[in-house]
Amino acid sequence: MNERFVAEQDFYVRYAETDAQAVVHHSSYVIYMEEARSHYARSRGQSYVDFEATGHFLVVTELEVRYLAPARYGDLLRTRCWIEEMKSRKVIFAYEISNPQTGKVLVTARTIHICVDREGSLRVIPPAWRAWAD
Amino acid sequence: MNERFVAEQDFYVRYAETDAQAVVHHSSYVIYMEEARSHYARSRGQSYVDFEATGHFLVVTELEVRYLAPARYGDLLRTRCWIEEMKSRKVIFAYEISNPQTGKVLVTARTIHICVDREGSLRVIPPAWRAWAD
Amino acid sequence: MNERFVAEQDFYVRYAETDAQAVVHHSSYVIYMEEARSHYARSRGQSYVDFEATGHFLVVTELEVRYLAPARYGDLLRTRCWIEEMKSRKVIFAYEISNPQTGKVLVTARTIHICVDREGSLRVIPPAWRAWAD
Amino acid sequence: MNERFVAEQDFYVRYAETDAQAVVHHSSYVIYMEEARSHYARSRGQSYVDFEATGHFLVVTELEVRYLAPARYGDLLRTRCWIEEMKSRKVIFAYEISNPQTGKVLVTARTIHICVDREGSLRVIPPAWRAWAD
Repeated sequence: MNERFVAEQDFYVRYAETDAQAVVHHSSYVIYMEEARSHYARSRGQSYVDFEATGHFLVVTELEVRYLAPARYGDLLRTRCWIEEMKSRKVIFAYEISNPQTGKVLVTARTIHICVDREGSLRVIPPAWRAWAD
Repeated sequence: MNERFVAEQDFYVRYAETDAQAVVHHSSYVIYMEEARSHYARSRGQSYVDFEATGHFLVVTELEVRYLAPARYGDLLRTRCWIEEMKSRKVIFAYEISNPQTGKVLVTARTIHICVDREGSLRVIPPAWRAWAD
Repeated sequence: MNERFVAEQDFYVRYAETDAQAVVHHSSYVIYMEEARSHYARSRGQSYVDFEATGHFLVVTELEVRYLAPARYGDLLRTRCWIEEMKSRKVIFAYEISNPQTGKVLVTARTIHICVDREGSLRVIPPAWRAWAD
Repeated sequence: MNERFVAEQDFYVRYAETDAQAVVHHSSYVIYMEEARSHYARSRGQSYVDFEATGHFLVVTELEVRYLAPARYGDLLRTRCWIEEMKSRKVIFAYEISNPQTGKVLVTARTIHICVDREGSLRVIPPAWRAWAD
C-alpha cells in the first residue's frame, strides 16, 4: 500500500450537505468520494473530462460505505483516494475520509466501476488510464 | 387567474432535504419547483421528456424565490404551479408552495425560461407546448 | 420473506437527480432509500418524526448498493423496502428499486443502522418500533 | 464598490452537480452561493459556526439568480461574494460566479437574510458581524 498513489484533498463541509441531525448527511459522502476520484485523475495529470471525451465512461456498479463518526458544518475534511484494483474492464477505488484537525477517520469506502461506451456496452479501459495502477 | 390551469401535487419532505437548522434547505425548494414543472407537463397530458426528444430545451434564465415560513422533515408539502406568461421563445412559471395541513404558504416563486436547441441557439417553442397558455 | 412487511412506493425521477451521463446519479438512490424508510414507517402507521421526538435516532453505519441498470429523467420508479434484521440496538433495512413499467430491477441495497440518543450514545430501540419486525 | 471586501474562491464543478443537459444544474449555484457566504466569513477571520454558536441564525428570505451562461463538469469556477447592504436585522449578499479560465460571467445573484434566534424571533445582528460592512 505504501507504493500506491494516493490523491489527497482537503475541503470544508458545505451547509447544504448537513441534515436535521446537524451532521453531514450520509449521501453527501458518496459525492465527496466522486469528487475524490475526479481529484485523483487531476493529480495524475489527466482529467475525467478527457476520459469521457474518448467515448469511455466509468459507471458505478457497486458501493460500500462504513460510517465511523459524524462530521459537522464548517469541519475541514480530507479525502484520500487510491486504486485498489485495476482490471481490463473494471476498476476498484478505495477511500478514507477523515478530519485532518483531529486525525479521526470518519468514513471508509470502496466503489466498483466498469468501463462502458456511450451505448452502455462493456469496453476495455484505455491503456493511458490503466497505467494509473502501475 | 381563475381560468389558469394550475398543477397541484402533494409530497413528503425527504430527510436529505433538511439542513442543520432542522428545516428544509432553501435550495431544496428550487428542486421542488422543477418537479412542479414536470408535474405541470404530465397534468397537461404531455411529458417534458418528449419536449427534449424534439430537440428543444427549456433553460432557466432567472429565478426569484421568497421564503415566508420554514418546513420540516416529515411535513406534507403542496406545490401549485402555473404559467404566468408564454411568449414565442420564453415562458414564465409561477409557484406557491404550502403546507396543506396548516394552509400556510411557505414559498412563492417565479422562474423564467428560454427555449433553445441542442447547440444552445434560441428556438421558438413548438405550438403543441405554446397551447398550454391558451 | 413472504411474510415480511414490504413498503412499496412509486415516484417520478426528478430532473435534478440526473447527471451529465443523462442517467440518475448513483447518490440519488441513497436518498430514494432513505425516503423508502420514511415511507416504511408511515406504512406501519408511525412516523420517523415521532421516533426522533422520543430522543432516539437511527444512524446509518453501513451502506451497500448494487447498481444493475440505469434510470432516466421522467422514469417512474418503485422502491420496495423491508426489514432484514432487527436487534435490540441495530436494524438492517433492505431495498429493491425497479421500474414498474418494464419490471426491470435497477438497484438492490442494504443499510445498517444503530439506535443512538441525542448525545450519540448507543440506545435500545423502543419496543413499539422493534415490533415492526414481528 | 471598489472598497468593498470581496471574498473570492475557486473550485471545480463536481459531477453530481450536473444534470441530463450535461451542464451544472441551476440549483447547484444556490449551494455555491451559500458556500461563498461561508468563505466570506472565513475570509474575514470568523466562522458562521461561531455565529450560530451565539444563538443567532441568518435565514434566507429572498433569492434572485440570473443565469447567463452554462458550466460543465470539470470546469473551474470562481465565486465572488460581497455584502451589498447591512442593516440591524437584515443583510444582503451579492454574488458573481464566473469561469476564471475564460473570464466569462455565468451567474449573478443576490440573497436577502434576516437574523433570528433559535425560536425564529427577529434579532439584531451582533456588532462583531455588523462590522463586516464597515
